[in-house]
Amino acid sequence: MSTIPDIGEEQRQREEELTERVIRSFDSCADPRLRRVLAGLVRHLHAFIRDVRLTEEEWNRAIAFLREAGDITDDHRQEFILLSDVLGASMQTVAVNNEAYADATEATVFGPFFVEGSPEIAIGGDMSFGATGEPCWVEGTVTDTDGNPVPGALIEVWEADEDGLYDVQYDDERTAARAHLFSDDAGRYAFWGITPTPYPIPYDGPVGRMLDAVGRSPYRASHLHFLVDRAGYRRLVTHIFVAGDELLDSDSVFGVKESLVKEFEPQPAGTPTPDGRDVSGAWSRVRFDIVLAPEAALRR
Amino acid sequence: MSTIPDIGEEQRQREEELTERVIRSFDSCADPRLRRVLAGLVRHLHAFIRDVRLTEEEWNRAIAFLREAGDITDDHRQEFILLSDVLGASMQTVAVNNEAYADATEATVFGPFFVEGSPEIAIGGDMSFGATGEPCWVEGTVTDTDGNPVPGALIEVWEADEDGLYDVQYDDERTAARAHLFSDDAGRYAFWGITPTPYPIPYDGPVGRMLDAVGRSPYRASHLHFLVDRAGYRRLVTHIFVAGDELLDSDSVFGVKESLVKEFEPQPAGTPTPDGRDVSGAWSRVRFDIVLAPEAALRR
Repeated sequence: MSTIPDIGEEQRQREEELTERVIRSFDSCADPRLRRVLAGLVRHLHAFIRDVRLTEEEWNRAIAFLREAGDITDDHRQEFILLSDVLGASMQTVAVNNEAYADATEATVFGPFFVEGSPEIAIGGDMSFGATGEPCWVEGTVTDTDGNPVPGALIEVWEADEDGLYDVQYDDERTAARAHLFSDDAGRYAFWGITPTPYPIPYDGPVGRMLDAVGRSPYRASHLHFLVDRAGYRRLVTHIFVAGDELLDSDSVFGVKESLVKEFEPQPAGTPTPDGRDVSGAWSRVRFDIVLAPEAALRR
Repeated sequence: MSTIPDIGEEQRQREEELTERVIRSFDSCADPRLRRVLAGLVRHLHAFIRDVRLTEEEWNRAIAFLREAGDITDDHRQEFILLSDVLGASMQTVAVNNEAYADATEATVFGPFFVEGSPEIAIGGDMSFGATGEPCWVEGTVTDTDGNPVPGALIEVWEADEDGLYDVQYDDERTAARAHLFSDDAGRYAFWGITPTPYPIPYDGPVGRMLDAVGRSPYRASHLHFLVDRAGYRRLVTHIFVAGDELLDSDSVFGVKESLVKEFEPQPAGTPTPDGRDVSGAWSRVRFDIVLAPEAALRR
């Protein structure tokens, strides 16, 4: 992993001894897990500095960047989360905490837009609550990794409207495009939502300037959020993405996984709906079958 | 270097592929150095998360810590520098940029208390300008690594007073305990300063709470700052430390190097001074011979 350049032996010793000295400074920490995490942080942070031979000017720029990130952060804007997201650190944390288990559905980033206490809808209900966008019929099953139905699973769903905004980004306090429902006795679920559309993460701060400097887009691939929870199973936080979306390969937070890309089938205006609902105009439909890992898979 | 635990093959692949995907996202960056630094940052940051199997709760705490650091930071307080300091990242950056070269004097951290435009003093002058503390006679030479004198070298010196405060921490605007002078034709220099005393880095913020949680002291070993500069030589930023100081092994920012620990010899009240100055009470004296690396040693 390490690619420290070929430096003289005395210099190498100085650098390695410094790292070990810092790690030893945590030896008297009473909390073994905190000691382990900080020792790991120091080891990898020092390896980074040594590997790229970080200049003092670059260190100064890094310090200034962190200060700017702090300056723009408030209760409605969290630049450090955005930074973690665009460096793939959020997604790597998700990966580490949701290890591959049989054919269990993969997890992806939680994002900052989930809100506790969403309204409950019945199976087949509409979670848009007036949010604008093309109607989308979403249906599927919740099963375990042996294919048995999981009835009574909590399914939280939330998404942005066709302007790329979540309800918490509206000027008023209304709730829209978020709801929860429960799988039925056969593990089935279905609801009306909105066909997902792409939107950028906030890019008017230091993270946005960094993306610009490296030629990366702030746009997220179109997606619909799911949180699925049932006693005895590993809680699943994930999205589904739209097959054919041009942004699938350049999602700004690296949330896309191939197994989560689904066909949203376009339905021309006038196509009969599954539940007989009268939809004026085109709509779409998608199937998402959810497989939950057992709770024991939560931690290794 | 890497100590990623034994995880399943599919899981390992998922984690490694994610890291590579994030690194590839910098491929179109027009600045090759920025690309290199960010790729290195991502590689080591991901290795840290994978190595310690960072939990989502720990990730949340890290994000909250960074926000708190941002909140306490202003023009007079830079918590991100303190964080870099106590993790040894500042010192590792110094190490990388001041590689071992023959017997050239070693560098250490710059610290946040240097101020441009210090008053000039003659050789033998007093840099304390009224700052309180025991008088200390500092003398030595500036030479190159072949032992030849370096005349006309700029020598900036600054330090805390006996209460552990730098002038910039005073309530008024006065300048004290900082000055600059130049080496003479034989490379010699000398001045009156203050015998260094220990002081803590600011510890009423998240960095201080972290030190407390791991059982570390915020105190810095007693020291006197030097910046030595002369065309044709590598600029030297360093301190000298006080032999016998109990804090030498626990300096909160890891600035101590054995070669920089000097004997500050106590002189009882009444001991004649080198320049005949009338000092009422005890004083001390120290010798610090400075060896400058050639400018070509600046970067490898």
